[in-house]
Amino acid sequence: MAENEAGEPGSEPVVLAQDADHVRVLTMNRPDKLNAFNSALFAALADALEAAAADDEVRVVVLTGAGRAFTAGADLTDMGRARTEQGSGPAPDPAGRLQQTAESFPKPLVAAVNGVGVGLGFTILGYCDFAFIAQSARLRAPFTQLGLSPEASSSFLFPLRMGWQNAARALLAGEWFDAQRVVDSGLALKVCADDAVLETAVAFAAQLATGPLESLMATKGLMLDAYRDVVTQTRARETEALARLTGSPANLAALQAFRSR
Amino acid sequence: MAENEAGEPGSEPVVLAQDADHVRVLTMNRPDKLNAFNSALFAALADALEAAAADDEVRVVVLTGAGRAFTAGADLTDMGRARTEQGSGPAPDPAGRLQQTAESFPKPLVAAVNGVGVGLGFTILGYCDFAFIAQSARLRAPFTQLGLSPEASSSFLFPLRMGWQNAARALLAGEWFDAQRVVDSGLALKVCADDAVLETAVAFAAQLATGPLESLMATKGLMLDAYRDVVTQTRARETEALARLTGSPANLAALQAFRSR
Amino acid sequence: MAENEAGEPGSEPVVLAQDADHVRVLTMNRPDKLNAFNSALFAALADALEAAAADDEVRVVVLTGAGRAFTAGADLTDMGRARTEQGSGPAPDPAGRLQQTAESFPKPLVAAVNGVGVGLGFTILGYCDFAFIAQSARLRAPFTQLGLSPEASSSFLFPLRMGWQNAARALLAGEWFDAQRVVDSGLALKVCADDAVLETAVAFAAQLATGPLESLMATKGLMLDAYRDVVTQTRARETEALARLTGSPANLAALQAFRSR
Repeated sequence: MAENEAGEPGSEPVVLAQDADHVRVLTMNRPDKLNAFNSALFAALADALEAAAADDEVRVVVLTGAGRAFTAGADLTDMGRARTEQGSGPAPDPAGRLQQTAESFPKPLVAAVNGVGVGLGFTILGYCDFAFIAQSARLRAPFTQLGLSPEASSSFLFPLRMGWQNAARALLAGEWFDAQRVVDSGLALKVCADDAVLETAVAFAAQLATGPLESLMATKGLMLDAYRDVVTQTRARETEALARLTGSPANLAALQAFRSR
Repeated sequence: MAENEAGEPGSEPVVLAQDADHVRVLTMNRPDKLNAFNSALFAALADALEAAAADDEVRVVVLTGAGRAFTAGADLTDMGRARTEQGSGPAPDPAGRLQQTAESFPKPLVAAVNGVGVGLGFTILGYCDFAFIAQSARLRAPFTQLGLSPEASSSFLFPLRMGWQNAARALLAGEWFDAQRVVDSGLALKVCADDAVLETAVAFAAQLATGPLESLMATKGLMLDAYRDVVTQTRARETEALARLTGSPANLAALQAFRSR
Repeated sequence: MAENEAGEPGSEPVVLAQDADHVRVLTMNRPDKLNAFNSALFAALADALEAAAADDEVRVVVLTGAGRAFTAGADLTDMGRARTEQGSGPAPDPAGRLQQTAESFPKPLVAAVNGVGVGLGFTILGYCDFAFIAQSARLRAPFTQLGLSPEASSSFLFPLRMGWQNAARALLAGEWFDAQRVVDSGLALKVCADDAVLETAVAFAAQLATGPLESLMATKGLMLDAYRDVVTQTRARETEALARLTGSPANLAALQAFRSR
């Protein structure tokens, strides 16, 4: 059984969905853009996660990327365009909606990090219960280099999951993490050969999905509950900080440098 | 100086207690049942911990199991019987009382994991300040396989102590953890030879017990205080989830499969 | 550019400050006392951190010790004298002021642990975002041996940063941690040759300080915010416990033994 969803009319869907053995594989599908998040991908992935949460046939979700990247994070070109086109009403916040959906996702979420991850391509691992990472993948969250600050509650979840100093290397120093360091810091379970990472994650998910949905959801929910308030509060503070820093001289200079490369 | 307590009249006590050098060793003593917790063992171990907490001569407690197992967790046969015999009044909750006693135990608690641990035999390590584990021991919390959900605040304490992904392997995937993995994930300090684990734990405890009781209790209390509210809240949520799942079709099918083995 | 501050009139300053590349190096400078904290050093280091926080030219601070020690912690001789000289008014609390300043320090804080650290010389690492440690350094927080209890919110921050059992070894057992164990437990990033630790820390800080101040402060602030309340509450509880234990028979006996060595 296989299905596609979240496509735009007349175009290739930006998120692919495929089901087997109570496991749904969601594939970010903008390979020519390294699966960078534009508004459409933010919205489509949030939609896809909500659909997976609501579907009783789905017990476990695997998240991966099409092509050679996991995801390059926010599409900086698109961010500029969105800001220009936006009217005077309350801004739509597709990035925030995806983060909210992912942070409270009620079923086990398994990442198959098939290649490079930048920004949300790194911080989204803070929402995943299990991650497998390709040997050649490397991850980076260059918030300070861009004159910005963390997102996706990573300023809480990274210290919790990686330890403070590893989190500081990721978020303050904006260092590249190679696959082994991602595992050593606790954000992934295993380094896999590049061509085996998805298969390994899906096999793991299928084994997990032999358990009853009620138990999987109760257990995941209990694990989330203990941290739910602080995750929500942290994301609210992050949103405020980003609003303050976006468009600041340091941010504009960094974007300028990025575009002129 | 040695003493026994918590026995039933005319039978071997289900918890043995032995004192030396301000260290009390508590031994779960149903070796023919792999020290599985029936109501009597739940109650006796809670009693024994309360007595140790109240005794000024006791500075440190070591917890271990008689025979080849640490503890096989809740005795599933006994759970069924208890549910059948129970009247319409409020249910006694010896398991809850033991967890409450252990989660707030005011003195250092050292585990000597002498053999296999299942369910609470794994999750009780979330309450221990130090653990030593026998080379041949292995631990598992098969909540999802039984159609159930976590207990002993492990849905908070395991992510805190093991990291999120290791906790998810333990609680969501219900994997077996061998002794080395228990150490690598932060739930125990050291793998010991099977015949040396108790001796090692007792020697460590005796060294610890050279410190003044007031300082040991103040320090342990401060470490607990920071997490006390969330531990209590988590256990309350776990109790609700277990009440909802117990007797569910998935749970009954799993128990049926267990009994027909 | 170099400057000195926080000196006493007519004497060598107890904290040295030196700036380069937006990095301020603060050096605890009582080398003949192994940089033990007397009231003057507590106050001078708090002053120096406040000045660094307020100076827009400073983006990152490095903390180290002069001579062969990092810091031997509270100067036990001075503690006795302060208690004797103190009148009936509210006690000044220079140790508390330093801890408050360090726990909320709004810019990245890098430790260059150049040698032995005792008490606050260990627990202050709970406030540092990055630490580099000399190969021959070793750290110990002998609170229980002194009849005392933890400080510097270490009863919360050590379990968070090191895992529970490593924290218990540090705080309950008062064990010595050698440099490698400090790294393995997550309190430092890297063991360095003794003569390279400061240079390594400063180079790391200089790289970090190429980022814009606003982003570094926003990110550090977000990381602190998630834990701010519990850190403050924990230090308040620690202060109460220390007030109760200071002067207790166990504490007096330990101090007596210390002075007669």
